Amino acid sequence: MSSIIGNHLKVSIFGQSHAPGIGCVIDGLPSGEPINMTELEAFLARRAPGKDPLSTARKEADKPEFVSGILDGHTCGAPVCAIIYNTDQHSKDYSEIADKPRPGHADYTAHIKYGGAQDVRGGGHFSGRLTAPICIAGGIAQQILARRGIRVGAHIYAVNGVYDDAFDPCDIPVSVFDAVAQKKFPVLNDEKGAEMQARILAAKAELDSVGGIIECAVTGLPVGIGDPMFDGMENRLARILFGVPAVKGVEFGDGFAAAAKRGSENNDAMEYAPDGSVRMKTNHAGGILGGITTGMPLWFRCALKPTPSIAREQETVSLSKGKNAILAIHGRHDPCIVQRAVPVIIAAAAIGILDAVLDTERNF
Amino acid sequence: MSSIIGNHLKVSIFGQSHAPGIGCVIDGLPSGEPINMTELEAFLARRAPGKDPLSTARKEADKPEFVSGILDGHTCGAPVCAIIYNTDQHSKDYSEIADKPRPGHADYTAHIKYGGAQDVRGGGHFSGRLTAPICIAGGIAQQILARRGIRVGAHIYAVNGVYDDAFDPCDIPVSVFDAVAQKKFPVLNDEKGAEMQARILAAKAELDSVGGIIECAVTGLPVGIGDPMFDGMENRLARILFGVPAVKGVEFGDGFAAAAKRGSENNDAMEYAPDGSVRMKTNHAGGILGGITTGMPLWFRCALKPTPSIAREQETVSLSKGKNAILAIHGRHDPCIVQRAVPVIIAAAAIGILDAVLDTERNF
Amino acid sequence: MSSIIGNHLKVSIFGQSHAPGIGCVIDGLPSGEPINMTELEAFLARRAPGKDPLSTARKEADKPEFVSGILDGHTCGAPVCAIIYNTDQHSKDYSEIADKPRPGHADYTAHIKYGGAQDVRGGGHFSGRLTAPICIAGGIAQQILARRGIRVGAHIYAVNGVYDDAFDPCDIPVSVFDAVAQKKFPVLNDEKGAEMQARILAAKAELDSVGGIIECAVTGLPVGIGDPMFDGMENRLARILFGVPAVKGVEFGDGFAAAAKRGSENNDAMEYAPDGSVRMKTNHAGGILGGITTGMPLWFRCALKPTPSIAREQETVSLSKGKNAILAIHGRHDPCIVQRAVPVIIAAAAIGILDAVLDTERNF
Amino acid sequence: MSSIIGNHLKVSIFGQSHAPGIGCVIDGLPSGEPINMTELEAFLARRAPGKDPLSTARKEADKPEFVSGILDGHTCGAPVCAIIYNTDQHSKDYSEIADKPRPGHADYTAHIKYGGAQDVRGGGHFSGRLTAPICIAGGIAQQILARRGIRVGAHIYAVNGVYDDAFDPCDIPVSVFDAVAQKKFPVLNDEKGAEMQARILAAKAELDSVGGIIECAVTGLPVGIGDPMFDGMENRLARILFGVPAVKGVEFGDGFAAAAKRGSENNDAMEYAPDGSVRMKTNHAGGILGGITTGMPLWFRCALKPTPSIAREQETVSLSKGKNAILAIHGRHDPCIVQRAVPVIIAAAAIGILDAVLDTERNF
Repeated sequence: MSSIIGNHLKVSIFGQSHAPGIGCVIDGLPSGEPINMTELEAFLARRAPGKDPLSTARKEADKPEFVSGILDGHTCGAPVCAIIYNTDQHSKDYSEIADKPRPGHADYTAHIKYGGAQDVRGGGHFSGRLTAPICIAGGIAQQILARRGIRVGAHIYAVNGVYDDAFDPCDIPVSVFDAVAQKKFPVLNDEKGAEMQARILAAKAELDSVGGIIECAVTGLPVGIGDPMFDGMENRLARILFGVPAVKGVEFGDGFAAAAKRGSENNDAMEYAPDGSVRMKTNHAGGILGGITTGMPLWFRCALKPTPSIAREQETVSLSKGKNAILAIHGRHDPCIVQRAVPVIIAAAAIGILDAVLDTERNF
Repeated sequence: MSSIIGNHLKVSIFGQSHAPGIGCVIDGLPSGEPINMTELEAFLARRAPGKDPLSTARKEADKPEFVSGILDGHTCGAPVCAIIYNTDQHSKDYSEIADKPRPGHADYTAHIKYGGAQDVRGGGHFSGRLTAPICIAGGIAQQILARRGIRVGAHIYAVNGVYDDAFDPCDIPVSVFDAVAQKKFPVLNDEKGAEMQARILAAKAELDSVGGIIECAVTGLPVGIGDPMFDGMENRLARILFGVPAVKGVEFGDGFAAAAKRGSENNDAMEYAPDGSVRMKTNHAGGILGGITTGMPLWFRCALKPTPSIAREQETVSLSKGKNAILAIHGRHDPCIVQRAVPVIIAAAAIGILDAVLDTERNF
Repeated sequence: MSSIIGNHLKVSIFGQSHAPGIGCVIDGLPSGEPINMTELEAFLARRAPGKDPLSTARKEADKPEFVSGILDGHTCGAPVCAIIYNTDQHSKDYSEIADKPRPGHADYTAHIKYGGAQDVRGGGHFSGRLTAPICIAGGIAQQILARRGIRVGAHIYAVNGVYDDAFDPCDIPVSVFDAVAQKKFPVLNDEKGAEMQARILAAKAELDSVGGIIECAVTGLPVGIGDPMFDGMENRLARILFGVPAVKGVEFGDGFAAAAKRGSENNDAMEYAPDGSVRMKTNHAGGILGGITTGMPLWFRCALKPTPSIAREQETVSLSKGKNAILAIHGRHDPCIVQRAVPVIIAAAAIGILDAVLDTERNF
Repeated sequence: MSSIIGNHLKVSIFGQSHAPGIGCVIDGLPSGEPINMTELEAFLARRAPGKDPLSTARKEADKPEFVSGILDGHTCGAPVCAIIYNTDQHSKDYSEIADKPRPGHADYTAHIKYGGAQDVRGGGHFSGRLTAPICIAGGIAQQILARRGIRVGAHIYAVNGVYDDAFDPCDIPVSVFDAVAQKKFPVLNDEKGAEMQARILAAKAELDSVGGIIECAVTGLPVGIGDPMFDGMENRLARILFGVPAVKGVEFGDGFAAAAKRGSENNDAMEYAPDGSVRMKTNHAGGILGGITTGMPLWFRCALKPTPSIAREQETVSLSKGKNAILAIHGRHDPCIVQRAVPVIIAAAAIGILDAVLDTERNF
């Protein structure tokens, strides 16, 4: 499968950082769904770089061209193909990177796997730039979900050890998602956000980078979405989330914290809500039991490692000379990619959620 | 796909806790591989309950019958089907559980998803008992990997907030795996293990349960196994690991800790080893870059929530009466399933690793 | 995938002719569907051998044991596993067949593919006996389809050049399916059937075998089932039909005959039926346009080659001696498997149809 | 899956006849394979229309733009995306076709399936134009196979009941493939070809169309490619071949003719060749036994129905008026698509063969 994900809804991602373009094919979308292009482009703009000192100076319009699948502003049932042509590539010499694999990047592993034929320019198929087509597919999925009352939102939960407030896992009105989506630096607590930004700029000044954690939630899901064992919501979402570069950990609900707790603390008591539906009084389970949605908000967190591209000198090897070497990475890099990754995590979640929704017989 | 996992190697898990049996079909194994049944049964015995006060008193021989795919002790190329017939089921009345979903279990979500037709006895298809066939498939995979020099090992890393030592992610000799596999309570540091067991017994005495973390590593992997994006080693392993009941978080290498670090701390410097191969000087990446193995040990941790079945009274609902209710779960339960889950995590990893190995063109 | 088929509904077939057993796992069935075991066993009995001089004398009860997935006579949402234990195996010496591959069988190709580790006894995983689990899965699928008004039926269309009448592709009442299903030799025209049986017995007398054609139809399908390109009804059905041993050709509607015609003869004119629905005036298309059902009966034909096991001496090679050899196959064989294959083709069709139905969003 | 095919090698087809473009994503190609663009374009030109009175006058350059996956003329391991932008679309009014479904086309089935949102212009995603991206993927696959000594060739076997000579299924030198590939009307026997062309022109003159049969063969395949049951070579190839519009029947080796024969006539006797390899003395099996290649040429035939677009008046319905209607299709159409389908069948076969080759562990 490699760069393809999904059961009912299949998303195929293609492109390299310095190839003519990057894009996606989305096969299995319901037909007749209106796609709001203005909204989609606004969503993509949240990921785009070059906006401030916190991210790379590379300018990318990230405006997708739709080659197929959309007619008169609606999905027509045929696969949707969207392409972003790469325009702002620096035609620099990549021979040093081809020779000296960058620590923390896939340069060395790709070199061995592809026998030297891989595209090293800008990270090739492993570039963070490939998250743009994930956002196209996820942005479309998000619109289709919203029409079914299902909303996806996320915020920066931590940067370099500074923590934001957390979502209330039992009650996340759409206004919370909307408010954080408006922010240039999407945190719930702006004081914490300022502290995070200070950490990012400090790392940048020291030619270094920082990592962070993103918290994401999905509201409006009916009970019964997802399947047992290997197609549970955790499995589906983890499989796609680990496809986002830099993600090294995923936890649902209390996750690793649950491991330190007792059952009596972690079980979510159940009760009837005033409207006659069954609900949980707490939501440690992250809205998922047995892989299946409980009707409570589904929530999870992803750990992103610090950007591996740093301007400091690093120890590596020269593959051509067969001996140890020192590498100094030049060029435009993000001292922190967490703020730009927020829409990517939303997009990845939306793809996984829509796939599970379409897989389920139960109707809306 | 639901209860089926894998690309080249497909494992299909079937059964319910109180059905006639449970088992698996393994499609895509290489032919001519010897299967050591004594070794396999010893591996399955590590998961079996009823051995001590730390786990449930349910006795299960867990001896698989091989229906197909094995001839004269070797895989013959045809799918392997193995069954464990359920024998020690208590024929008690399950009508209370059918009416009052147990908090922390899949009872309510399955009830909605399957319209009341689901098998509620002992958790049905969601029972931890279904990890036995995962161990059959994984135990076979482990033997095939071992003949290729690839070893999988794991230990309890934490229980209820008490932490064991960690593996040295750069150097894990087979003797470390072997030593911990011999232990009844598989930890690296037995003092910490004693403390963990005290926590488990304390929880049991208070009619409660505890969760924990398992650390797992894979050594001997060549560089270049795994694929970009959605078929990377993290994606493949996460998808199967979240199929193990109670797993709520998975992190590779430094995982969530990496999110608090700087790039200069988290990048693994590279160098030539004395034997001429390229290696990393540290292994924060968990042996994976760009989804592809680096040649360093692959390592990860899984968070397991506390056993949801506790003897204390819990708040739930009565579906038949349509009002809130109190539930007291009786019967045999594990106050902690972490020690029994260690071979399950090893098995899940072995399945995912063998699948990736078979997917890769590169030869051993 | 190998011995697994399906998208939403996954059927995994396992077993070898002389392994302890054969069976299937069916993952993705709707829950709460009643399974009529009497009806299922009657369906399986249509495939069973040993009933008359037209087929092998091997006695097989073919009674499935259900290991999982069925509770109180209904599907419970968990995977269904069914096993038929092999009992009437002759423990003869298979060393000659291991050495001298039988012409027309998979002996030689399996020998090379599996490096000599394959199970040669009775054809192993390639045995026609593996069609019994296809019938279990298909028999269950058929019952679920019937409750949705979708019926599957088939008859012998040709044996050794003698042709039966054809279904009227525009109008096949259930009574036609039921009548032919009652017959020991399932043809529409019994005179033609008698002629076919004479051909079979003549071949048998001359230590030879004959092939034939099966015609199958599916009625009651709504418009809109199936998908474009590679998941069209033809693609789905062909992929499973060619999994039935001996099938060497599949054609939908007029099939190969259409290739000799003109467009004006082959196009099906459309009109409104008295009930206000749209229908075709003819059905050359076999009820499928663009891979999607038209609402007319879906119909197709499969060509089955003559049973390759014949008692005559045949030229082959001795793999151990590395030279040409003569082989005389002994044992129990069918001079014609077409009559026994009728329920198998029905079963294969039912699996493919139910999978497509479950894949489709449209409700019944 | 819908418009995606393959196991190890995944090909995703997108586009509609009058969308901005059509194309494919090819995921899983080996890296470092040189792609000869001149050769690829020559292959695509064989499918292109507008060359003579036998096919549509629509002019299409069919020159693919490669968006990703190819670097310095070689595959780089990343997915290959190729696009053909549509340029020669007539911006005519499609409202009549939207209202009056064309007999023999997918207009009505797509209308129901997609709820009226489908792209009706020129057949949308169901257009024969979508075979161009199949040819891109297949043309690349063909080049990679050729470097492994595996060749794919095809010719028109029949048109409207006029039959060409057949391949010698035991001996097809590359020169035969090359010779027929050079011909504007690719038949083995040019006299028969002239007769076929006369039939096509006669049908055209009468505002009608004709169908035909294509015979395809693959040489140089080692023994052991393909898998049992549902991933046999027949299954894999049939699933992709039925994705080519107009294909209504597929038979391997003697196919439907085998159904009329006896086992003694149909079994292929085996012997040692002078070079010490095992071979069959005949090749009725089409080079496949048990789904696995025998080492003999793999050969099959596809039946293509007559082009459904004919200029004669046809009976259909008016969906808007809810009553019967007469339709006269105007515009540019092929009176026969068989000659243009020859490279498409080659391409489809090459995709399926390369996928099976890459799935097989055995090395070349």
